[in-house]
Formats: sequence, structure tokens, C-alpha cells
Amino acid sequence: MVNTGDTAWILTSAALVLLMTPGLALFYGGMVRAKSVLNMMMMSFGALALISVLWVLYGYSVAFGDDVGLGLLGNPAEFFGLAGLMEDTTSADGGLPAMAFVGFQAVFAIITVALISGAIADRARFGAWMVFAGVWATIVYFPVAHWVFDFTLTDDGTVTHTGGWIANDLAAIDFAGGTAVHINAGAAGLALALVLGRRRGFGREAMRPHNLPLVMIGAGLLWFGWFGFNGGSALAANNTASVAWVNTLVATAAATLGWLLVEKLRDGHSTSLGAASGVVAGLVAITPACSSVSPIGAIVVGAVAGALCALAVGLKYRLGYDDSLDVVGVHLVGGLWGTIAVGFLATAEAPAGIDGLLYGGGVDQLWRQAVGAVAVLAFSFVLTLAIGIVIQKTMGFRIPEEDEVTGIDTVVHAESGYDFASLGSSGSTAPPAGQARATSADMARNTERTLA
Amino acid sequence: MVNTGDTAWILTSAALVLLMTPGLALFYGGMVRAKSVLNMMMMSFGALALISVLWVLYGYSVAFGDDVGLGLLGNPAEFFGLAGLMEDTTSADGGLPAMAFVGFQAVFAIITVALISGAIADRARFGAWMVFAGVWATIVYFPVAHWVFDFTLTDDGTVTHTGGWIANDLAAIDFAGGTAVHINAGAAGLALALVLGRRRGFGREAMRPHNLPLVMIGAGLLWFGWFGFNGGSALAANNTASVAWVNTLVATAAATLGWLLVEKLRDGHSTSLGAASGVVAGLVAITPACSSVSPIGAIVVGAVAGALCALAVGLKYRLGYDDSLDVVGVHLVGGLWGTIAVGFLATAEAPAGIDGLLYGGGVDQLWRQAVGAVAVLAFSFVLTLAIGIVIQKTMGFRIPEEDEVTGIDTVVHAESGYDFASLGSSGSTAPPAGQARATSADMARNTERTLA
Amino acid sequence: MVNTGDTAWILTSAALVLLMTPGLALFYGGMVRAKSVLNMMMMSFGALALISVLWVLYGYSVAFGDDVGLGLLGNPAEFFGLAGLMEDTTSADGGLPAMAFVGFQAVFAIITVALISGAIADRARFGAWMVFAGVWATIVYFPVAHWVFDFTLTDDGTVTHTGGWIANDLAAIDFAGGTAVHINAGAAGLALALVLGRRRGFGREAMRPHNLPLVMIGAGLLWFGWFGFNGGSALAANNTASVAWVNTLVATAAATLGWLLVEKLRDGHSTSLGAASGVVAGLVAITPACSSVSPIGAIVVGAVAGALCALAVGLKYRLGYDDSLDVVGVHLVGGLWGTIAVGFLATAEAPAGIDGLLYGGGVDQLWRQAVGAVAVLAFSFVLTLAIGIVIQKTMGFRIPEEDEVTGIDTVVHAESGYDFASLGSSGSTAPPAGQARATSADMARNTERTLA
Repeated sequence: MVNTGDTAWILTSAALVLLMTPGLALFYGGMVRAKSVLNMMMMSFGALALISVLWVLYGYSVAFGDDVGLGLLGNPAEFFGLAGLMEDTTSADGGLPAMAFVGFQAVFAIITVALISGAIADRARFGAWMVFAGVWATIVYFPVAHWVFDFTLTDDGTVTHTGGWIANDLAAIDFAGGTAVHINAGAAGLALALVLGRRRGFGREAMRPHNLPLVMIGAGLLWFGWFGFNGGSALAANNTASVAWVNTLVATAAATLGWLLVEKLRDGHSTSLGAASGVVAGLVAITPACSSVSPIGAIVVGAVAGALCALAVGLKYRLGYDDSLDVVGVHLVGGLWGTIAVGFLATAEAPAGIDGLLYGGGVDQLWRQAVGAVAVLAFSFVLTLAIGIVIQKTMGFRIPEEDEVTGIDTVVHAESGYDFASLGSSGSTAPPAGQARATSADMARNTERTLA
Repeated sequence: MVNTGDTAWILTSAALVLLMTPGLALFYGGMVRAKSVLNMMMMSFGALALISVLWVLYGYSVAFGDDVGLGLLGNPAEFFGLAGLMEDTTSADGGLPAMAFVGFQAVFAIITVALISGAIADRARFGAWMVFAGVWATIVYFPVAHWVFDFTLTDDGTVTHTGGWIANDLAAIDFAGGTAVHINAGAAGLALALVLGRRRGFGREAMRPHNLPLVMIGAGLLWFGWFGFNGGSALAANNTASVAWVNTLVATAAATLGWLLVEKLRDGHSTSLGAASGVVAGLVAITPACSSVSPIGAIVVGAVAGALCALAVGLKYRLGYDDSLDVVGVHLVGGLWGTIAVGFLATAEAPAGIDGLLYGGGVDQLWRQAVGAVAVLAFSFVLTLAIGIVIQKTMGFRIPEEDEVTGIDTVVHAESGYDFASLGSSGSTAPPAGQARATSADMARNTERTLA
Repeated sequence: MVNTGDTAWILTSAALVLLMTPGLALFYGGMVRAKSVLNMMMMSFGALALISVLWVLYGYSVAFGDDVGLGLLGNPAEFFGLAGLMEDTTSADGGLPAMAFVGFQAVFAIITVALISGAIADRARFGAWMVFAGVWATIVYFPVAHWVFDFTLTDDGTVTHTGGWIANDLAAIDFAGGTAVHINAGAAGLALALVLGRRRGFGREAMRPHNLPLVMIGAGLLWFGWFGFNGGSALAANNTASVAWVNTLVATAAATLGWLLVEKLRDGHSTSLGAASGVVAGLVAITPACSSVSPIGAIVVGAVAGALCALAVGLKYRLGYDDSLDVVGVHLVGGLWGTIAVGFLATAEAPAGIDGLLYGGGVDQLWRQAVGAVAVLAFSFVLTLAIGIVIQKTMGFRIPEEDEVTGIDTVVHAESGYDFASLGSSGSTAPPAGQARATSADMARNTERTLA
């Protein structure tokens, strides 16, 4: 019989994670110039559309089908089209319907692909992006998800399902995707930024966010959705999910403080872009660690992530790669830190039950974390570079330079993000009294009193 | 005793569906010109406010009270003011509190009314809209909800509650409201567009969306909320809800691809408005079908919906009715397709357990689906036409033409959506260095390097 | 063993309440002028970051540790750093993991602090705000949460945990925080508005909302999140949560109608700012009452709240305090009304099982409600005044007047909310045909027909 509480939580979590991709579209969209907001958002929506379909067709099967060898790949044919998964196959003593798990994992695949788009803002052809998204999901994400998320199952000592090498052979702890999602997307972002090259004016012209409230809406929705991402990764509504929830709150909060503090000390002021970025940096870093550290440990993970990523986003100017919206600085660096941090800060008191180096557990977990992180980083970087170069050489990935000046929205999508012309030059047509909550009479009375 | 897992899922789903109406307000609001965004959003918020109160007073009772004859209407007095429903009346072996069901169904009534407003953008008096909303809910939605959603209940062979004709006598499958919500709202939108007539400049002036990021936020929130709409319609956190979840994901994704593809082939480019519209078209079409088709079937339902609706939205220009935001093209057409598609694509493997024509089930289910669809379409169209004409002739529904030019926000609400004047003419008052995540020093260093 | 359904609902509710703070940031941010939107949002995000960390360190312990005397304060050392709470300590017969409760209560502390910021829009130094937030949470919110939300627990007649005085000794009914959250924040807002003084031009210049769609997104997200706030306060997915859900829907709806009606009668038109404000007023008022009134009672609570707050927001102009975004008019007045309303409108049929004055229960509950309300109001007002004055006299709370003119975003954060410059003067760069859903051909055909 289905455990209805666990099912309720996983279906809810899956919906929360689905929302993260539109949230990311806003977060990214607000950060680019007004003339490229739609293209930026379309890369997320395009990923949502395409990867969902591929997931149902063969993605789930590659990630969670029986291993075909060495823990590298699931059998693509086993669940082709989700065959056989519509029946309620849960065991007698409570469980999750297979389709709830399918849905929950689908949205992880989608957001990982969408994350990469931040590295190539303002300059990627939409068609080329869609081809990239499909190929990248197929040969990078689906296998890596198998490595990290597909656990071997046994029933009375008999192996009923064989999973991936990082989860089972290496036994690295990556609760919700520090490697599979963030290091993966971050390394891919770096590779793609190199393939596409720098935007015209990069490092010389200010390319300021055109709509910071949009960035903050995005950050808010990402945080909200991330409770499903991390909490749902317990695959049950239990104590582990609850600990993950609290760690996801407090690490993110500490990272925001960390980022704002670095800004204040370095630049003399804290910015809203810094707050939004700190939120994401903290969420990224706690993702692999949220089941294995204490809330105090989570504060450390977060605070370091916030400070570290606030410094790391400057690297692109020093090294000269145009990782436009800091996929490397936030997701790669934050993902690496969070994954490695488990090796130091894990405590056996936490649900994962493992002690890291600082809790007397020695270096055993630390090297497992490092190997997992480096393996995903290298695999993703090399394959992404290859995919990117092939697309660039064949169909072309980047728009012409003059189209960058005009704006990619107009050229590629024949649209413009905003049109306030109907409001007139003042940006407003309403009489002044119209928008006060109080009556004009109240205000008039007050004016008299004030002037008297 | 209450089943806490089912209750958690339904309360969550109800909240998700509640969010769809503000989401719709954004989706619609971003599509109109800047001078009418507030009026557009107010029609949704007004529906939220009014229909909630009517639902508590008598709406729930009309929809889910004991049938008073022929499956056409529930007894309005039975649960007036929700009398007697605050006690926990769930049966001994697990169930849902009555009030959870009341809340979940309330938000369906609200969104259905709000959907209609897209057909009469820019030109409806707010007071007239509110009167329309109350009357329409009362004589159209509440009865139709009874027809479609009120199932007859039995206990040990004794009928304890008698429901509506479509659900019980016809036995059409409409899992979450293809007929009751989408065909219903779509037919009403068509009728109201005819009553109010075309906007000044319709078909001659470009009436472009003024804020496409707002449209995309709306589409994102709608998709998110729709998991509650469809998944929650299982009224339990079980396998059916899980299948509905996955089908809701993949059909929507396929519809987005379908719409974008039609655009690309027809116009040479894919737009963000197309992506947002494809999302909604897919969600509409899978709504009746999400419990009865396989994920592969859902891809077909979605892809056809996306392509079909992308073509259907052009009809208004050919036929000359000003269905301003495509309630007909998306909700009526998409709702019809999804409802009919059940007759073709239903498979007994899916939770509903029925085979459609293409799965060897013959035409039995197909004609039931067609009869249900046509009945709701005709009932809604005729009654809406009557209500609309009466309001137009008595209190007046449409604003004067000169007010359309000025903008309905200023004239009707004495407000304006935006006022960016305090930022100065450049639309910005910040020094360039202020909004880069990196330090000015980093950028200066880079500039030197780049120029060197 | 953990009750998975209850846990699913509380983790979901906690995420919903978390989202309320970004939602509030949008609600508040849209209401100020464009030049101060970021500072407004940053006060909410800053509270999110800081209070989460304090909560984990000692806040939870002060609020929910064993009482150290007179029901005034929990033991700050008991759960310092959430010590000992990661183990699954739920009793054998089903329950909630301690960490789920910790997370759920954390987000209440955050939003309460963030609410206050609406009273000091446009003029507070960010650093001073952060200091205020930390001190205020520590000496006002954490103790008051102990008073109101910390119930004494017994096991077989033995007291296992001693709670706060309002919950246990006074036995006032405050289901989800009418006193602890809304009266508390409202009184603090009044005190802080007095300390900081009026904005330059207050009462003379129109200070219109710069982005009303942003206000409405905020209101929508607040409403959505509030189902977790009120429904989750049942701490279970049960009948009480379901009743709270429906009451939260209908009271809010009635309040929106109430506010719009007052506007229509007073000013001749209903505004979107009024709708958004009515939503919040209704949510505030039903917060303490949602478990103790019937749905009809909830309509009364809401309708009165909407009308009352619509009138109360004018007080600031008459009395001359610059409660910029109406924290007093909505949260203090709405919170007082809702808390007192329990004394009149509670019905024993509702889950709380108490009859108010109008249901024959006499004045017993009414005086308890009044004492609780006044105690929190006075405590919060006096302490906030003291904290505010100390900060103002030492580090300085308010920005210089010339910086108000320039805009606080530029001066304090070195950022600007928006930059649409890249779109050109028309606010748009797209060719007209690009954004229509229909083909240009369709439209051309129509134009011919129309002109013919």
C-alpha cells in the first residue's frame, strides 16, 4: 500500500522543483540587459519543454534503469516511454508510487540543463541551444544522474536493481545533487562560455541587471522550490527531510550574510544583487550536505559559500572567460565547496550518520567526496566542450556581433520584453490622488496641518 | 480517522490551485497594453474575492448537495453556509475532512470565472464584470460542476448521495475539468467577446504584450499550480495522483514544443509568448485526460494541443471576434481536444482503466466524451450570451470608446500600473560600477588586459 | 514513528511561510517609488538571512525552551544551536519530527520582523535596520512567541514542558499569530515610524506605488503562503487544518470585497492597491481566529477587517506619523480586530470548541483576548521605541534628507531597480508584427476585411 504522507511530500516537492526553472528564468532574466531578457528566459522554458519529453522517452531509463556495466549507465530500453511504471508497484508495507519518483527526478534533469544557460547570456542562437540541451542531457546528465542518484536495491540479500558507481561503489555523499546538478552544470557552463567566447564589450561596458526586483522574485522562488529539492530528496516525509529543511534554511541565510559582508567590506555597501546571489550560493552549497551536517555545520557551510562565491565571481574578469551570469562562480565553486565540506563537517548525529574529518571521522569520507566531485567536473567539462564545438562548427551556436548590439530578443525572437509606450512619457497616466490608500480629503487636511 | 497524507496533499493542492488565479492575473496582465494591466488583473482578483464568498454561502451546496432532479442541480439549502461540514465526518477507515474537499473545489470555481476575463480585455466596466461573475458562477458554473464533479456515493449498496449526470449517467471522463472548467470558460469567453464587441483598433493596430516577463511568471505559476489542479483531483496522495503529475508535466512540455515549432515553421522564429501560450494549451488539454492516458499518450495530447491552439488563435482575426487574450483559441479549443482525446487515447493501463478507440476500446468512450463536451459548450455559450446581453442592456458592460484610448486603468480605477519617473530619464540613477558582482578593481584590471 | 502525512503538511507549510517573506518584499517593494524599491526588498531579505541564523543559535530555545519563570521566557541554553533536536524524538504513536516544528516556527519569526520594515520605507540605513532586526527579534519576538505559541505539555499527568503565559495561563486563543505576529509587528512599526520621523514631502507629495503588478504578485504570494501559516498552525493535516484553510480563503475574500466597497463608496472607484490591501487585511484578521469561527463567522471577520483597515490607513495623515506602507493601519488594526473578534464570534462548532459572546459564551473569552492583545501591543511598542531611540542616538537610523531625494537605492546600495535603456526611447525595439500570436497574414487579411 502507498504511504500517502510520503507520496504527498514527494508530489509536492516535485512541483516545488518544477517551479525552480521558471524561478531561474526570472533570476537570470532580470540580470541581463532589457534587450535580451526574453532569450534568457526562453532558454529555461525551452529546457523545461524538451527535457521533460526526453525524460519520459528514455532519460529516466538511462538514469534509473538497471546498470549495463561498471555503474556508468542504466539500460535505456528498460523503461522506454515509462513502460510498466503506471501500475502501483509499491511494496506491501508502505512506499512511493514509481511515477512519483519519476516526476521528482524529471525536474532535477530540467533545472540542471537550464542552469547552464546563464553562462552564455545574450549571444546564443535559440535553435542551437535546444539542440545542445537535448544532446547534453542525453550524454551528460542522464548518465551522471545514474552515477549519483541510482542506488542499488536488495531484497532479502538478493540484488534486485544495480545502480551507479558514485552512489554505491564510491559511496560519496551527495544528498540532493552537489555533483550531479551543480558541479555538472557549472563545469558545462565554463566549457560553453569558452566555446561561445565573450560578449561584445565584456569587461569594458557595464552590463547591469535591467530588473533587480525580477532577480529577487527569482531568488525567492528558487529558495522556496529548493525545500522540495533538498527536503524531497529524503524520498519520505520523515526526520531526514525535516533536518534537510532546516539546514536548507539556515545555510542559505548564512550565505546571504556572508556575501553581503564581503560586499560591505570590499565595496562599502551591500547590494540586492549580492543578497540574491548569496541566497543561491548557500542553496547550492548545502545541497549535497543537508542530510549530513548539523544546523551549526550548515551555518558554516553557508557562510563560507557566500564569502567564497562573492570572491569567485570576480575571476571571470581576471581570467577573461565570459561566464555571464556566474554559473561557474556560484554553481561550480559552491557545488565543489558543499561537496567537499561534507568530508569535513559531516557529523554522525545527522541523519546520514557519518563523521567527517573535523568530527573525528578521518579522511575516509573526504577523499570519496573529492573523487566524486572531480569525476563529474572532468566528465562534464570535456563532453560539454566537445558538444559545444561540434554545434558551433556545424549549425553555429553564436549570433552575429551586430545582432548583439541590436539585441537578441528582437533578432532571434522578434519580440521585446517590455513596451510601456501606452503610459506616455511620464511613465504614468494617473492623476496623483488616485493611488493613495487614503482619501484626498485626508491628505488635504494633513497638508494644511503640515504647512500651518 | 483522517488520512493525514491524503489531507496534506489536498490542502496543498488547494493552495496550489488558489495561486493559479493570481498567476492568471499576471499571465493576462502582461499580455495587455501597459495602460490596462490593472483592470486585467483586477478581474481575476475580483473573481477570487466574490466567488469565494458565494461558494461558502450556496455555491458548494449547488455543486455538491444532493441532486434535486435529473442530475442537473444540487440542493442549494443542504450545505448553506457550509452548515454541518466543520465536524470531522470522515469514515473510520481513513478519509478526507469535508472542509478539505470544500476548499479544493472552491478554487476551481474561482479560476473558471477568472479565465473568462481574458476575452474582454481593455474594455469591461469593473462593476459590470463583478455582477457578471456572480451571476455566471451561480447559474452556469455551480450547476456544471455538479454535472461533472459530483459523484454518486453508495454505502453497502445503498445510495447515500446522488450526483450529476455527466459524471454518473453519461460517465464521460473529465478528470480535472476539461469540460467544467475549460470548455465552460472558453464558450463563455466567446459569448462575452461577441456581446462586448471588438476593441477600438482590433486587427489594425498592433496590441502587443507590454510585459512579457510578467506573462512568463504567470505561465510558470500556472504550471506549478496545475499540479495541484490535476494531481489533487485524485483526492488522494496515491498512484493516480502520481500518474496525473507526470502526464501534466510531459503533455505541457510537448505542447510548448508544438507551439514553438508551428511558430518557427510559419514565422521563422519562436517567441516567448508562444512558449507561455504553449504551456497553457498543454495544461488545458491534459486536464481531462491525465488519469486515463499513458505518458506517451500525454505527449501526443500535448503536442497536438500546442500545434492546434497555435493555429486556432488566428481564427479571431479571420472571423472577426475580439477574443483578446485567446480564451477561445486556448481554453475552448484545447479543452475540446483534450476531452475528445480521451476517447481516442485512453488506455486501460492508466489509472482510469478505460481503453479508447486507438487502444481497442471502440467508440463507446468517444461518444460519451463528445456528448459531455458539447453539452457544456452549448449550455455555457447560450446562458453567457443571455447574461451578457442583459448586463449590457441594463447597467452597461463596456466602457466608452474614448476611455479605451485614455486607458481603462486611469478611467475605471484611477491608477496607473507603473511609475518609473523617480529614476530619471535614463531609467536608472545608479553609477555603472554599482551593480557588477565583481569589484571595480577586477573590471579595471580586465579592461587594461583587454585593451592591451 | 513519524506521522508522514502530518510531516508532509508541516514541511510544506513551512516552505509556504518562507515564501511569504519574498512575497512581502514584492508587496512592499512595488508600493514605494522606483528609486527605493531595492532598499525596501533588502529589508525583507536581510531579515530572512539574519533571523534564520539567530533562530538556530538561540531563538528557538528562547521561544520553545522550558519556561524560566512566570511564562515570560524559555531557557536560551536548552536548545542552543538546536542541540539534540536532530534525532527523531517523536513518540511511538505518530508525531512530528522536532526539526519540522523548528523550521515551521522559524519562518514565523522571520516574517514578523520583515513586516515592520513597511513603516520606515525610503529612509532607513540598511546596517541600522539589520542591527534593529537582530535586537528586536531577540528581546521582543522570541519572548512573545514563547508567551503565545509555547504550550505546556504533560504526559500521564506529569508536566514535561512548561510554556508561556498567554497560551497557558491566560488561555487566549491566537491560532496562528494575531498577537505574536501582527499586533507585535504593527505596534513595532508605529514606534519605529515615530522614531525615524516623516519622509520628506510626506502628506504633501504624492508617493504613488511605482509598480502595482509587483504589489499584486506580492499579495498573491502572501495569500498562497498564508495557507501554510494558518493551516500549518494545526501542526497536523487534519480537520482543524481544513477548517483553517477554508476560513483563510473566505475571510480574505470578504475583506477584499469590504475594502473595494469602501473605496467605491468613498472615492467613486475601486483600485488594485485596494484589492491587494484588502487581501492582506483579511489574512491578518483571520489569523488568530481561523480555528474558532465558522465560515460565516469568517466572512464577518473578513468583511469588517477590510472596511476597518480601509478607513484606518487614513489615520496617519490625520495624526501625522509616517507609517509609510500601513503596517499600523493593516497589521495592528487588523490584528487587534481579529484577536478581539474571537471573543465575539467563536463558536463551539468550530475546532477550537469555544463559544464567544455572540454564541452565548459570555465575556469570558473576550477579556482573555483583550488582555493578550493589549499585553503584546504595549510590550512591543515600548521596547521597540527604546531600541529605535538607542540605535538612532548611537549609530544613526535614518539617512540624510538629501539622500532621500536622490533615492536610497543609489545612495545606500549603489544600485538602481531598473534599467530599460537598452530598449531605446520607445521602450521597445521589436517590429510590430513580432508579438502577435497570429500570423501577419491573418492580421493583414483581417485589416482588409475590416477596412473593406
